[in-house]
Amino acid sequence: MMRAEKACLNDPLIVKQISQLSLPSGSQVMIDPWTYATDEKLDVEKRTLICYFYLKGNASEVDANHYAYPLDFYCHFDMVNLKVVKLFRLPKKDFEHEVEIKQDEVQSAAAAPWGTVSLDRQNEYHPDLRSGPKKIPTPLRVVQPDGPSFRITGNVVEWMGWKFHVGFNYREGMTLHNITLDGRNTFYRLALSEMFVPYADPRAPYHRKAAFDLGSNGAGVCANNLALGCDCLGLIKYFDAHLTDINGNPRVMKNVICCHEVDDGLLWKHLNFRTQKAALVRSRTLVLQSIITVSNYEYILAFIFDTAGAIHYEVRATGIVSTVPIEQGVKSSAHGTVVADGAMAPYHQHFFNLRIDPAIDGHENSVVVEETVPLPINEGNPQGIGYHVKQEVIEKEGFADIDPLKNRVFKIINPSSRNPVNDKPVAYAVVPFNSQLILANPNSFHARRSEFALHSMWFTKYHDDELYASGEWTNQSAGDEGILTWIKGRNEEIDNGDVVVWHTFGTTHNPRVEDWPVMPVDKLQVTLKPVNFFPRNPAIDLPMSTQKDNDSKLYSRM
Amino acid sequence: MMRAEKACLNDPLIVKQISQLSLPSGSQVMIDPWTYATDEKLDVEKRTLICYFYLKGNASEVDANHYAYPLDFYCHFDMVNLKVVKLFRLPKKDFEHEVEIKQDEVQSAAAAPWGTVSLDRQNEYHPDLRSGPKKIPTPLRVVQPDGPSFRITGNVVEWMGWKFHVGFNYREGMTLHNITLDGRNTFYRLALSEMFVPYADPRAPYHRKAAFDLGSNGAGVCANNLALGCDCLGLIKYFDAHLTDINGNPRVMKNVICCHEVDDGLLWKHLNFRTQKAALVRSRTLVLQSIITVSNYEYILAFIFDTAGAIHYEVRATGIVSTVPIEQGVKSSAHGTVVADGAMAPYHQHFFNLRIDPAIDGHENSVVVEETVPLPINEGNPQGIGYHVKQEVIEKEGFADIDPLKNRVFKIINPSSRNPVNDKPVAYAVVPFNSQLILANPNSFHARRSEFALHSMWFTKYHDDELYASGEWTNQSAGDEGILTWIKGRNEEIDNGDVVVWHTFGTTHNPRVEDWPVMPVDKLQVTLKPVNFFPRNPAIDLPMSTQKDNDSKLYSRM
Repeated sequence: MMRAEKACLNDPLIVKQISQLSLPSGSQVMIDPWTYATDEKLDVEKRTLICYFYLKGNASEVDANHYAYPLDFYCHFDMVNLKVVKLFRLPKKDFEHEVEIKQDEVQSAAAAPWGTVSLDRQNEYHPDLRSGPKKIPTPLRVVQPDGPSFRITGNVVEWMGWKFHVGFNYREGMTLHNITLDGRNTFYRLALSEMFVPYADPRAPYHRKAAFDLGSNGAGVCANNLALGCDCLGLIKYFDAHLTDINGNPRVMKNVICCHEVDDGLLWKHLNFRTQKAALVRSRTLVLQSIITVSNYEYILAFIFDTAGAIHYEVRATGIVSTVPIEQGVKSSAHGTVVADGAMAPYHQHFFNLRIDPAIDGHENSVVVEETVPLPINEGNPQGIGYHVKQEVIEKEGFADIDPLKNRVFKIINPSSRNPVNDKPVAYAVVPFNSQLILANPNSFHARRSEFALHSMWFTKYHDDELYASGEWTNQSAGDEGILTWIKGRNEEIDNGDVVVWHTFGTTHNPRVEDWPVMPVDKLQVTLKPVNFFPRNPAIDLPMSTQKDNDSKLYSRM
Repeated sequence: MMRAEKACLNDPLIVKQISQLSLPSGSQVMIDPWTYATDEKLDVEKRTLICYFYLKGNASEVDANHYAYPLDFYCHFDMVNLKVVKLFRLPKKDFEHEVEIKQDEVQSAAAAPWGTVSLDRQNEYHPDLRSGPKKIPTPLRVVQPDGPSFRITGNVVEWMGWKFHVGFNYREGMTLHNITLDGRNTFYRLALSEMFVPYADPRAPYHRKAAFDLGSNGAGVCANNLALGCDCLGLIKYFDAHLTDINGNPRVMKNVICCHEVDDGLLWKHLNFRTQKAALVRSRTLVLQSIITVSNYEYILAFIFDTAGAIHYEVRATGIVSTVPIEQGVKSSAHGTVVADGAMAPYHQHFFNLRIDPAIDGHENSVVVEETVPLPINEGNPQGIGYHVKQEVIEKEGFADIDPLKNRVFKIINPSSRNPVNDKPVAYAVVPFNSQLILANPNSFHARRSEFALHSMWFTKYHDDELYASGEWTNQSAGDEGILTWIKGRNEEIDNGDVVVWHTFGTTHNPRVEDWPVMPVDKLQVTLKPVNFFPRNPAIDLPMSTQKDNDSKLYSRM
């Protein structure tokens, strides 16, 4: 990306265009390259990048927020020959589209002069460029004087009955393998399979603005080097990754995953009102986290294990919203939110697809969808208060959507392994993060290229080469490569076999001003929760929460 | 409750009934009284309790779990005269109902002998009655060497720009008042207004099993005395409550609310990929928590403030599921889950209603409901990828339901207070906990007595006497007293005035075996989130997360 930025800035067309803007002295033009993506104009040269231009007010301020000052032109850039192919004026009014600036027009194009740039310090996020913290919390530290509860051997983690292997690759980032609990199989493989961020500003070229952050960028390649005491609090174990660089040489990426325990409040409690004696256990969790930076945005991605048999997958979206230019002084846009003078953050959605390859007490699993429905009013239910659970086994590959008003529950069961207490098949429920699905028309390239964002849940038969829900090659993909395409007409049976479940979840992000200059995290959490897998609460035999262990302190000032 | 238990156990009818069971020697019969609730037989004497009977295997084990051994009869108990009114056999098969045991029949009633009671130690939750912890985590402590970030003066809390008054009363438990942030009004009053737990087992008498835990029991009265280092980890401030006892004398309830800080991971981060320098801030939160015990169940209720301007309300449901008798050896029931031999936990729902009395930058607020919808395909949106936000101002009192697939958002706005950046009215969004609504027929007593569980959101004009969403008097209520009744035909305008928002959320609890003998928490969280209330991220000026403050430790063993 930095190579593209350098070459592009030196291209004669760009030099010419920039010279026509009355940019403040000392300022610097920055480029954020984007994949070209796809539209019906399929004659675009391969390996074409989009270069969006921004201004850094003061070139010497290396961490200044250039997203505050988007410029009003962009170009198509040939990555092979390192030259600008075409130049366009960007739309700034609500119902415009891009307009090509032909080569011979560059001299005469009515490039809007920059105008008075009020370099507003409030647009900066870096503390070196702001006036200093206004509210300072007192320190809060997490200490584990006897060390952690986990044991790690190479890439194998053992913690409170859980055991699994941690992987990491250039594309998916962190992957978990062969997860067992008390020696029983639960999940064979868990990993984010793809991410898709489609923008909803219909003005060309923004209709093509859509990022596949795994397939086109790489959650491994983009992973942050996590810093002790900054990214992670407490007693921290780090995992390094071994990838390759652009020339094929080995490259160590240090501290890409942090692993540590977190206290998450109470896990269970009962107080006998007759004796006033309580039994209570705290929720200790194990967090494995990595953070990816994809240009402007950050995603904090974590697997969280608890002591009640559940695994949680949590995404926190943060970083800087992508901005496009708008006329200075204009405060509203049909396509997004004005976050700073001259900078508009367009509407967009974020989609994540979690690939869940189960092995609930073994590899022969089924998927069951349940809903809770009222019983009819009759002799057995004269008062009309009864309800029951309707269950459907999913026989063939397919998909389904969330429906919390029906209490729709998705369970992965092992029909051959029964709970000794109630004889029900052991199961894990996939508790979804309830979110809107892709709003782009199903025939649009956004929808056709991603596919997985059309539905909340997908169920497929296991295939070795099916790891990425939008297909293998996402950069400038044209559709018909993802999970919907695999299963269309294939109709394989998935009952009592090697099934894979894929959960799509996300957010419809209509930015608010509080998302600027860096957004406070949007938290999205999915839970894999045991249902009749254990003969009782798996945390019933954990030690009581006691002051002796916890050493809390009483705040006693009036 | 204990007085009723004692009197009931000594009643001749009960003594006779118990003598007919071949109970193990050394065992003890326990009673959990329930409110009578209501059905169409409105001739029931007032102040009637239901007494359900359970067995404790060994009388000397004061914390033994009697819910494991439900007995198969119950009675109506007159609380005024302290005597049993009627005795019934409980249904044990799927499609039975209760059968009255007439007084002259008690001698001859075919009371099923207890049979072989296998007192299974696995039914116990108290550690004194179990064989000892199997997995022991190492200690994890939270320390604040410089003290907390909060300042508390009487019942007024100040923390990181937030300021509010903490209240507590016999019915609602914890209430928050006059919440301001950086001197600006946000919420005038926040409190749980009612809870309702309707059971879905249609067999009489269970059709009447429905608990109003605030209106009939009192979230204040039932609050736990929280213990340092057990319930709460870190540096803890406790609030006491001053209520009255049954005779009207003042009664201090100690440590009913705990107040402490919690680190909740990263709040925001951006890393400049060009320089590899990151700016990041951790999420520090302030938790105010109380725990209520209502016979078998516990609810952990917390308000959580964060430094990004949001307030969260979190409920954690735990404790022991209510059980009813089933034939020993039978593993399945049409009406719930068998959790132990002879004990079935019926299906039920939990509903919470959070009363949100806003004052967003003042008292003249409106409610706006938004949905995100695709734009039509046309010249402005040729690719079919655009979307926009549809907004509707709620003019009159009414209700609405969740719809995550439409990205339905509920906002409380101040039309007269505008964000300086984008000129939108300042707002707080009520981010719901997405859950199923009441399944009982709208004409059933469950639905008619509660009312609030019919819809996810309610909007009313402020009225002094409207604090409890099911009405003032819930014990043996017959309906037509709650929030639906208030607004029916009233049609008051709520636009740009003194509006109150009531959010109903909950769970459809179809018990799993892991919920026994005590259930791991079910977590439900609602968020009040600023939207265009601030001119930027309110946490942008918080200090960076640094190792110097956090003092994390590196785990370095291989």
